Amino acid sequence: ELREQFEDIHPADLAAAFSEFEPQSVWELLSTLPRAEQAEVFGYLPPETQVTLAISISRRKLSPIIRQMSSDERADLFNRLTEEQQETLLPALAQAEREDLRLLSSYEEGTAGAVMTSDYASLAPDLTVREAIEVLRKEAPDKETIYQSYVVDKERRLIGVISLKELILAPVGMQIHELMTYEPIFGQVDMPQEEVSVLISKYDLLALPIVNQDMQLVGIVTYDDAMDVAAEEATEDFHKTATIGKLDSSVKDAAINLLYRKRVGWLVLLVFGNLFSGAGIAYYEETISSYLVLLFFLPLLIASSGNAGAQSGTLMVRALATGDVALKDWGWMLGREVIIASLLGVTMALAVASIGWWRGGYDIALVVAATMTLVVIAGSLVGMSLPFLLSRFNMDPATASGPLITSIADVSGVMIYFSIATWYLGLQ
Amino acid sequence: ELREQFEDIHPADLAAAFSEFEPQSVWELLSTLPRAEQAEVFGYLPPETQVTLAISISRRKLSPIIRQMSSDERADLFNRLTEEQQETLLPALAQAEREDLRLLSSYEEGTAGAVMTSDYASLAPDLTVREAIEVLRKEAPDKETIYQSYVVDKERRLIGVISLKELILAPVGMQIHELMTYEPIFGQVDMPQEEVSVLISKYDLLALPIVNQDMQLVGIVTYDDAMDVAAEEATEDFHKTATIGKLDSSVKDAAINLLYRKRVGWLVLLVFGNLFSGAGIAYYEETISSYLVLLFFLPLLIASSGNAGAQSGTLMVRALATGDVALKDWGWMLGREVIIASLLGVTMALAVASIGWWRGGYDIALVVAATMTLVVIAGSLVGMSLPFLLSRFNMDPATASGPLITSIADVSGVMIYFSIATWYLGLQ
Ligand SMILES: [Mg+2]
Ligand SMILES: [Mg+2]
Ligand SMILES: [Mg+2]
Ligand SMILES: [Mg+2]
Ligand SMILES: [Mg+2]
Ligand SMILES: [Mg+2]
Ligand SMILES: [Mg+2]
Ligand SMILES: [Mg+2]
Ligand SMILES: [Mg+2]
Ligand SMILES: [Mg+2]
Ligand SMILES: [Mg+2]
Ligand SMILES: [Mg+2]
Ligand SMILES: [Mg+2]
Repeated sequence: ELREQFEDIHPADLAAAFSEFEPQSVWELLSTLPRAEQAEVFGYLPPETQVTLAISISRRKLSPIIRQMSSDERADLFNRLTEEQQETLLPALAQAEREDLRLLSSYEEGTAGAVMTSDYASLAPDLTVREAIEVLRKEAPDKETIYQSYVVDKERRLIGVISLKELILAPVGMQIHELMTYEPIFGQVDMPQEEVSVLISKYDLLALPIVNQDMQLVGIVTYDDAMDVAAEEATEDFHKTATIGKLDSSVKDAAINLLYRKRVGWLVLLVFGNLFSGAGIAYYEETISSYLVLLFFLPLLIASSGNAGAQSGTLMVRALATGDVALKDWGWMLGREVIIASLLGVTMALAVASIGWWRGGYDIALVVAATMTLVVIAGSLVGMSLPFLLSRFNMDPATASGPLITSIADVSGVMIYFSIATWYLGLQ
Repeated sequence: ELREQFEDIHPADLAAAFSEFEPQSVWELLSTLPRAEQAEVFGYLPPETQVTLAISISRRKLSPIIRQMSSDERADLFNRLTEEQQETLLPALAQAEREDLRLLSSYEEGTAGAVMTSDYASLAPDLTVREAIEVLRKEAPDKETIYQSYVVDKERRLIGVISLKELILAPVGMQIHELMTYEPIFGQVDMPQEEVSVLISKYDLLALPIVNQDMQLVGIVTYDDAMDVAAEEATEDFHKTATIGKLDSSVKDAAINLLYRKRVGWLVLLVFGNLFSGAGIAYYEETISSYLVLLFFLPLLIASSGNAGAQSGTLMVRALATGDVALKDWGWMLGREVIIASLLGVTMALAVASIGWWRGGYDIALVVAATMTLVVIAGSLVGMSLPFLLSRFNMDPATASGPLITSIADVSGVMIYFSIATWYLGLQ
């Protein structure tokens, strides 16, 4: 019946379908599945649904699922429970599982430790290929992957890796240490999760072994979780660039007051930043009241400066995040940017000069064109430099870079425009 | 000697080191490696270096490497050669390889076909487990992965998948069709590469099988290439949001005239968009010349509108890209946005009212505060709606959304501000 119908449906799809039901029904649906798949489907349920189920179902029913879950997903669930709820969950586990869970859930969010799983396959270097395959066959049901095995010494220090492909192609009597890759790529347990996903992507790894300070293997981060990390970090950067604080839930599910809090801080802060532009305008009030036509071009000039700045800022923020560009590249890139920005500035000056001529004659056309050239250069250089500067002071280059660049471009645009106008139109 | 020193270095690191040398030296370094690894290291070289090598080395030397390369990387290289160079490369391959290469390189960039490899392992449904493992063992050196095998019928239609783990855990006499997963997740050959990486990430797949219109298996996309696709698409969206056209090279390596061309288009276009703001200001010249103090608040008000718009726009662009939010969600999300934007608007009105009082007294404070509330709401609603609108008309929601939103926010900010001021300050 149900069990057969569910057989060839991917656990992710089952979870998506189940999550539409009430906790009690989800529970009954889960029970129709084989034990191992119950835990898998449970792991694909939205985190909030997992919590609701975990606290609304008897420990006796919950226990087998929690025990079967992969250790990283179990730790994630654990971290979402209140301390009281955590205490009721722990007795569902055996002693070793409890210790493993406490350790995994103790790592700071955003580090390798917080995304790794302890369900990795490890082998001793003196096993033969035949023995190793036998070990993997036995352990397979409990391991996240058996396609990569990690070779550890007696002190559990990571000394090599070997793939299942290498094992099944090798003579069965050979020993692991004769076949394995020595000095494998690895990560440290307190490394930012972003760097983990960069390593996995760079080396095309199925999983990255994670070691503690004593070089002992403590877990692995698998490629599927690295993909989630990469997407999460890109989202974070998108949001940061536009002054939105880190959201832990999806935008769709976010509560009104959460979104309000994540957005209000920088918006208010930038109001004060923009006072400088106002002050610049106030300073040149005399010029403006004599040549009101200058106001016509104000939005266009400062918007162009901001747009050029947003372009170069965005190029830099993303290039720094992907590792395409490093801090040390700032010097020569600034030189290149001066050339590009000058070309852009001149092009846009030409576009705007004719409008200047039409609205205000020769003098205005000249002022507007000169201003355009300079503000596009100024905006671009600010846009290029700010992310490097933030990086230099150990801040995230993505932080508020969009509106910060625009605000600085606005101020400098106002000052450049009216000082040129004041000087050229002979009002000094 | 060299060969031993290179043994445990990851091919990606060897490639990075080799690429510092002249083509001829790279060639000699490559020759110190075992044949299979030569092709692997070659595949990790930067695309431009691959091209330089491919056209500067004798066909006799090149041939074995090209034949060993994975088929997707070979097709990428082929597509970077001129037609003439392609013609000199083809004789290096056997007939079957040539046909495979022509087919793979014929798919449009950005589709599943252009990122898939044809080096997948396929099995017939009536093989026993023992036979299947024997097949995989034999084919392993030529396959991208043997951890997932794809089961096809006599017409090569995809009917199932089976993992190596399932195979080594099963009784050796069982037949594949008794064990395999029927109706596996798959992709179409002309599907956008972005959707391929979304499927691989959603279902945590090692590889996604790709079929043609007749449901015949034509290739697989592996998780490592899906990670690259996801990163590339995120970069594209970052750039698009800031009006930068699609760059095919890295920012670091991009030529000046390429960057100029990718940036100039929208910058000039937006100049004309910003003329409307200028026209708005010109329209209210009388009010402005009577109350020059209003100008002090102009940058601040329109920047706030733009910043709020950038926030909601960015939230939407990214949520639409990750699939967190769909077109149909626009209605209720707009409702939620009205509430959030009102709260933000009122908060910022309070922040700005005191400054208004200080600069211009009670009347100005009131005008500025009212304007702030309205422009933040207007900016937010524009920011939220524009990405949906672009999507609705089958345009990429990321396209220029940042500056477009800011430009619209600027115009509406100018109009709202001065019409309120004109009305309230009794000048009509
Ligand atoms: Mg975690
Ligand atoms: Mg990679
Ligand atoms: Mg996991
Ligand atoms: Mg997962
Ligand atoms: Mg982060
Ligand atoms: Mg980051
Ligand atoms: Mg602006
Ligand atoms: Mg390709
Ligand atoms: Mg996933
Ligand atoms: Mg590939
Ligand atoms: Mg690759
Ligand atoms: Mg794309
Ligand atoms: Mg896209």
